[in-house]
Amino acid sequence: MAAKVTAMARETILLHGHIIDSLLLPKVLDLILQFGGMFELADIRIGKTRQETSSARIIVTADSPEKLSEILAEVQAHGATIEAPSDCAWQPAPADGVLPADFYATTNLPTEVRLRSRWVAVSGIEMDLGIRLDLDNPDRPPAAMVPMAEVRKGDPIVVGRDGIRVIPVERPAKLDVFGFMESVVSPERPHRHVIADVARRMQALRDGAGKVLMAGGPAIIHGGGRDALTWLIESGFIHVLFCGNALAAHDMEAHLYGTSLGFRLESGSTARHGHEHHLRTINRIRTIGSIEEAVRSGVITSGIMAACVRQQVNVVMAGTIRDDGPLPGVITDSIKAQAAMRAAVQGVGLAVLVASTLHAVATGNLLPASVPTVCVDINPAVPTKLADRGSFQAASVVMDAASFLREVAVELGWKK
Amino acid sequence: MAAKVTAMARETILLHGHIIDSLLLPKVLDLILQFGGMFELADIRIGKTRQETSSARIIVTADSPEKLSEILAEVQAHGATIEAPSDCAWQPAPADGVLPADFYATTNLPTEVRLRSRWVAVSGIEMDLGIRLDLDNPDRPPAAMVPMAEVRKGDPIVVGRDGIRVIPVERPAKLDVFGFMESVVSPERPHRHVIADVARRMQALRDGAGKVLMAGGPAIIHGGGRDALTWLIESGFIHVLFCGNALAAHDMEAHLYGTSLGFRLESGSTARHGHEHHLRTINRIRTIGSIEEAVRSGVITSGIMAACVRQQVNVVMAGTIRDDGPLPGVITDSIKAQAAMRAAVQGVGLAVLVASTLHAVATGNLLPASVPTVCVDINPAVPTKLADRGSFQAASVVMDAASFLREVAVELGWKK
Amino acid sequence: MAAKVTAMARETILLHGHIIDSLLLPKVLDLILQFGGMFELADIRIGKTRQETSSARIIVTADSPEKLSEILAEVQAHGATIEAPSDCAWQPAPADGVLPADFYATTNLPTEVRLRSRWVAVSGIEMDLGIRLDLDNPDRPPAAMVPMAEVRKGDPIVVGRDGIRVIPVERPAKLDVFGFMESVVSPERPHRHVIADVARRMQALRDGAGKVLMAGGPAIIHGGGRDALTWLIESGFIHVLFCGNALAAHDMEAHLYGTSLGFRLESGSTARHGHEHHLRTINRIRTIGSIEEAVRSGVITSGIMAACVRQQVNVVMAGTIRDDGPLPGVITDSIKAQAAMRAAVQGVGLAVLVASTLHAVATGNLLPASVPTVCVDINPAVPTKLADRGSFQAASVVMDAASFLREVAVELGWKK
Amino acid sequence: MAAKVTAMARETILLHGHIIDSLLLPKVLDLILQFGGMFELADIRIGKTRQETSSARIIVTADSPEKLSEILAEVQAHGATIEAPSDCAWQPAPADGVLPADFYATTNLPTEVRLRSRWVAVSGIEMDLGIRLDLDNPDRPPAAMVPMAEVRKGDPIVVGRDGIRVIPVERPAKLDVFGFMESVVSPERPHRHVIADVARRMQALRDGAGKVLMAGGPAIIHGGGRDALTWLIESGFIHVLFCGNALAAHDMEAHLYGTSLGFRLESGSTARHGHEHHLRTINRIRTIGSIEEAVRSGVITSGIMAACVRQQVNVVMAGTIRDDGPLPGVITDSIKAQAAMRAAVQGVGLAVLVASTLHAVATGNLLPASVPTVCVDINPAVPTKLADRGSFQAASVVMDAASFLREVAVELGWKK
Repeated sequence: MAAKVTAMARETILLHGHIIDSLLLPKVLDLILQFGGMFELADIRIGKTRQETSSARIIVTADSPEKLSEILAEVQAHGATIEAPSDCAWQPAPADGVLPADFYATTNLPTEVRLRSRWVAVSGIEMDLGIRLDLDNPDRPPAAMVPMAEVRKGDPIVVGRDGIRVIPVERPAKLDVFGFMESVVSPERPHRHVIADVARRMQALRDGAGKVLMAGGPAIIHGGGRDALTWLIESGFIHVLFCGNALAAHDMEAHLYGTSLGFRLESGSTARHGHEHHLRTINRIRTIGSIEEAVRSGVITSGIMAACVRQQVNVVMAGTIRDDGPLPGVITDSIKAQAAMRAAVQGVGLAVLVASTLHAVATGNLLPASVPTVCVDINPAVPTKLADRGSFQAASVVMDAASFLREVAVELGWKK
Repeated sequence: MAAKVTAMARETILLHGHIIDSLLLPKVLDLILQFGGMFELADIRIGKTRQETSSARIIVTADSPEKLSEILAEVQAHGATIEAPSDCAWQPAPADGVLPADFYATTNLPTEVRLRSRWVAVSGIEMDLGIRLDLDNPDRPPAAMVPMAEVRKGDPIVVGRDGIRVIPVERPAKLDVFGFMESVVSPERPHRHVIADVARRMQALRDGAGKVLMAGGPAIIHGGGRDALTWLIESGFIHVLFCGNALAAHDMEAHLYGTSLGFRLESGSTARHGHEHHLRTINRIRTIGSIEEAVRSGVITSGIMAACVRQQVNVVMAGTIRDDGPLPGVITDSIKAQAAMRAAVQGVGLAVLVASTLHAVATGNLLPASVPTVCVDINPAVPTKLADRGSFQAASVVMDAASFLREVAVELGWKK
Repeated sequence: MAAKVTAMARETILLHGHIIDSLLLPKVLDLILQFGGMFELADIRIGKTRQETSSARIIVTADSPEKLSEILAEVQAHGATIEAPSDCAWQPAPADGVLPADFYATTNLPTEVRLRSRWVAVSGIEMDLGIRLDLDNPDRPPAAMVPMAEVRKGDPIVVGRDGIRVIPVERPAKLDVFGFMESVVSPERPHRHVIADVARRMQALRDGAGKVLMAGGPAIIHGGGRDALTWLIESGFIHVLFCGNALAAHDMEAHLYGTSLGFRLESGSTARHGHEHHLRTINRIRTIGSIEEAVRSGVITSGIMAACVRQQVNVVMAGTIRDDGPLPGVITDSIKAQAAMRAAVQGVGLAVLVASTLHAVATGNLLPASVPTVCVDINPAVPTKLADRGSFQAASVVMDAASFLREVAVELGWKK
Repeated sequence: MAAKVTAMARETILLHGHIIDSLLLPKVLDLILQFGGMFELADIRIGKTRQETSSARIIVTADSPEKLSEILAEVQAHGATIEAPSDCAWQPAPADGVLPADFYATTNLPTEVRLRSRWVAVSGIEMDLGIRLDLDNPDRPPAAMVPMAEVRKGDPIVVGRDGIRVIPVERPAKLDVFGFMESVVSPERPHRHVIADVARRMQALRDGAGKVLMAGGPAIIHGGGRDALTWLIESGFIHVLFCGNALAAHDMEAHLYGTSLGFRLESGSTARHGHEHHLRTINRIRTIGSIEEAVRSGVITSGIMAACVRQQVNVVMAGTIRDDGPLPGVITDSIKAQAAMRAAVQGVGLAVLVASTLHAVATGNLLPASVPTVCVDINPAVPTKLADRGSFQAASVVMDAASFLREVAVELGWKK
């Protein structure tokens, strides 16, 4: 028996924060058992109020060092720290665009690495990246998340799981829709309060010089949400717009021809040669040279793109293989488009993802978990897909894009 | 060869009406070929304007009387008539609730039967019924559609396809959304104009003492459409309401508890014991004895059911196996509920089917094709299902119920 | 201050079982805080293995007896018991079909009531019912769940929340798909293992004389799953079938005409007068008098209904307002149909709900949480709806009904 | 009156082909009226059999040349030709990537332009492009469709609508699922026959050295269709594969880790750190340098990508902004990816678009209407979207990708 005990691997882990109401403690205990370990609750202090934090000290044992390290790796991903941790380890990137085999893959949670026995925050929070160290340059963050494609040969990349910890997002003190993230996506849930919360946050961000990001698909135009979104932009509620060629083309088609995808927006009937309208629109803008010039020269005077030019909204248009044209300004290379989007999400305080699976998932991938995010789609599978890919912070609304935008705009004072 | 020619069966059919723009002529010619026949265009006159009708006389031949009769049966269903037709044939119903084997199955189009060498309109237009004759009683319609379950032994029931014709629904002179029935259900079509058309028709029907039917599901309440629908009813725009136990229960739950299916309508959060609210609501109304009494006695003072009682809306509540309770007034027998719905659709000038697959299909089954119908659902499969079952006259809107009702109400003057 | 303390209401609650891995403990602590109370962990013992149970003794305080009783009510619903509880209270039902205002509303979890200082199991577990006591008749269960509509004036009905406890469903020792109930419904999850688990359970239940319930909609026929389901029935894998008029009618239409809803099942093309086929089928069976007789007399020899008759499957067909006919045997009254379904679910060891929102929700309402349930639908909203209504035990598969049935059948040895 | 007549603009148009059963004639007549013109049927000859073609000579009049030219433009798009047409007109492209303002926008139908008084076929049929002439080089086609982005300044581009005609796709002699293109997308239609037809065509194309194109999304892997698709490729049934980074990454993740998006394909349960698996897979392939080398060197030995390498399938992987990595071989520039796809569709005899909205629409945009196409998705909105964008030739199947592929493979002889 004694021999067995000495053969056991053992480590002490610490949990602190809102480990009870965030369900962390039982989750961690369960994981230990699930992966074949055992635990002893060395110490547990449970906060008596919502404000007080709780903490637990847990001794974990397993019958092999390999199993223990598996368990530690697992629980660490949930915010457990190992007592007296070592510095994080790193290896040089073996080639341009390639991470070391054992690279640490990031989450969208705030993350710290242990460098020279101190915890250091990693900058540029984004899921599914590596962590690059830059120890010698005091002007740059010592640790930053880096996309695989941007790694250069020799870059010091964090590997393994030691000396790394992630900080769970705390439940906000003042509860709103993003605090009560109902996990189930359902068209049967009331959504008025989500609209009200989104409007409230947009108002607060405008007042406080914060930034709102909208990512949208062309159904905004097809379904009749163009006026409302234009008003939101003109009124200063939107500061960053992610879209594709289609939204911009159909927006300007609506100005030039009164149609979207060839359907008359007023009557819903098919316009003569309507299927050509978006092509002629794109060709016209290509002739002029840019959307900005088309707006400045008075060719495009109404709608979303005109409002964006006037309000100096940061528009990132990303290309796809289904594009006609595309319009000038569309970034056809997806890696370059990602980089532009990554730059544009800095400082965003609310993300509203409307009627575009592609942009919703792509934007969700880029956003830290701390950014309140709402995903609006008529198809409940889209918010589910977002959650499947790790964007758990997103509240979801199952409704059509145009109605959503109209109701948000009315909430903020739009007189249609 | 000659023998073969003489063996050919031959019949002359007539087509008239808007056979060009309704695509009837080519459809009929194609059917003749498709079922192995041949045709000769004996005469064709094509209207030179939209108002003028066209007509065609077509000699149909087939190599057996059986095949010919198949072809005639087929084209007759599309409005072709056989020259100099015989009277319709009939047989007595063999038992209560049973039609003769060869009974004529009705469509939802205006239909005439030939009796004593005269065409007589069949009353009570509804798809999938039989036709019962009543020749001896001058006070009653000589021919009426009859549900299978209501047939009594010995009733004279029309059989075969001779002496029967259906009249295609004409394209309306003034085109609106119901004139341009776009066949494809798509969330990508603009729907503002449908909302505008629905509102316009509701206004006209109220002004002209016509009737509007709404059939709705509980998602109206869950999604936040209760206020808007209440306003529409209070303002006299709705005259018949088809719903189930759930819509009524959650409407009154909203009054008594501020929740729907246990979610707080204002905040979207889960109420304590919220799942019990609809049960307690139902039990309370059962204690009182009826919804009418609950409204009159001041227990229920707001919402859809209160508005219906005050405005004397004809409410038909049909039961299903998923009901709790049910509420007093719910017709638990489906055949009796159908009969009540059948009586209530008489004189309806617009049908609005919102967020209930069951009620949309059931109501679609009962309505003549001449009643403009709009089907609103967040799931595009529901309008498709309606069309699959023969309700081709329905315009469809893919959006959430609450937004639809709110936008219709605003269009009609609602100040929310 | 002291006065305030003495004014505090206080009660001790007990939690035991798998309160850590089932997340009960933190849930309960959080609820106490959420509803304005405070707690002290008087005692906590955490099991060191998955087999060992844990327990906690928690002192709950609140600043008014009302608030405390709210909190106790809340946590009791999660399995917390109050130390030294009193007997449950009851009141006589005030009228036929009406429960006392304060009736206890049941969940689908095993439930006990305290009678004469002993915990007594309540029979007939089903959500959203009342509990009727029957203390004087030793032949009947002393406490049983009762639907509102079946209550008779004067029946003793349990009221309040004292002396009642629910037992959480335990995680099964051998994990399968029903143990890992992934909460999120997603078409992006693999479903092969669910199919394999369903097949394995069907095999085990057949071998062990257990019962499998299938509830299905007509899309089984339309989509091409008729052969597979027939084989499953013929092979003895299905013992109870819940369906509506449509599934039975289209199944027999397929036998008589080779079509379903008028589409040829072999070619997918529209059959001539195909829309009449289901009507003629229904009329024919009505002529014969019953499905059983149609099978016995050789009119219907293939398909689902024939297999059910031959294998003596307990078929409950419930009517709805969208039914044509209906077929003999359809229970048109929804309350009677519920009663028949309630009787039929007794002893069921697996419920498979396929392609019918109505039957899925209705059956989910009737089943105890302990019955493994799988909900299959091409529309992810259906399993979500089931979960919204409290049937959390259901695993979900987003796929078409026909493919699901074919794959289950192949897994069990079907050679198509 | 006479003055009015002389003021009328007048032109004679010709229609020929299957103008009756293709509904062309009434469509054209209706359009003339709809756009304010009048017509006289100068001559009409209707084919007496399905093989015989029909023809019509129609005199069109309108009260202004502008209106007439509108009408002619409209009916010409439906295949009507103007008697004694002039040559087509052209203008030089005003700049690189820009078409003349009045450019003719192509459809996906076979198209001819009139050059030097002769009709000349336009090569490279694809919708939404321009037509570039090349009269002086006998080695190149005199007229070819050209994407906007590939136009060079000065290229002669066809403008207006004179001297251009499109040839409607004829109904195939032997009817199969692609001949009976049912317009309505419905999950309630049987799909066994579509699967059978797809299998039959795949067999015929393999036997006849034709080419099958598959475009697919990652749900193929998530849902369990990897084995079936691998078998189809290994057996020589697939010759061109369009996909994105995700399908390839999850396919190889399945080989290396047994998971897809972190879910274990065998058990459906979450794998430890499963969300990192696709990242590690991508990084590993980037380390190796290419998918081909990963297969050749034995790192990847099973699955779709391995089969493609072995069978020399023409794989085009297109990048999007939601990609991690991406994998080597992914074309990140969307215009370059389109060009690669455009080259790869040449000679394709069947297109199967599975579970990818983006790839389905993008591929639909590139394909001539004459290529039989089937679109498979669990969401009925996807085939609808395809039809909304002009890909009317596509048959649709609403089912999950994995089941579809498994059933096609079984039909072709797969023993799973």
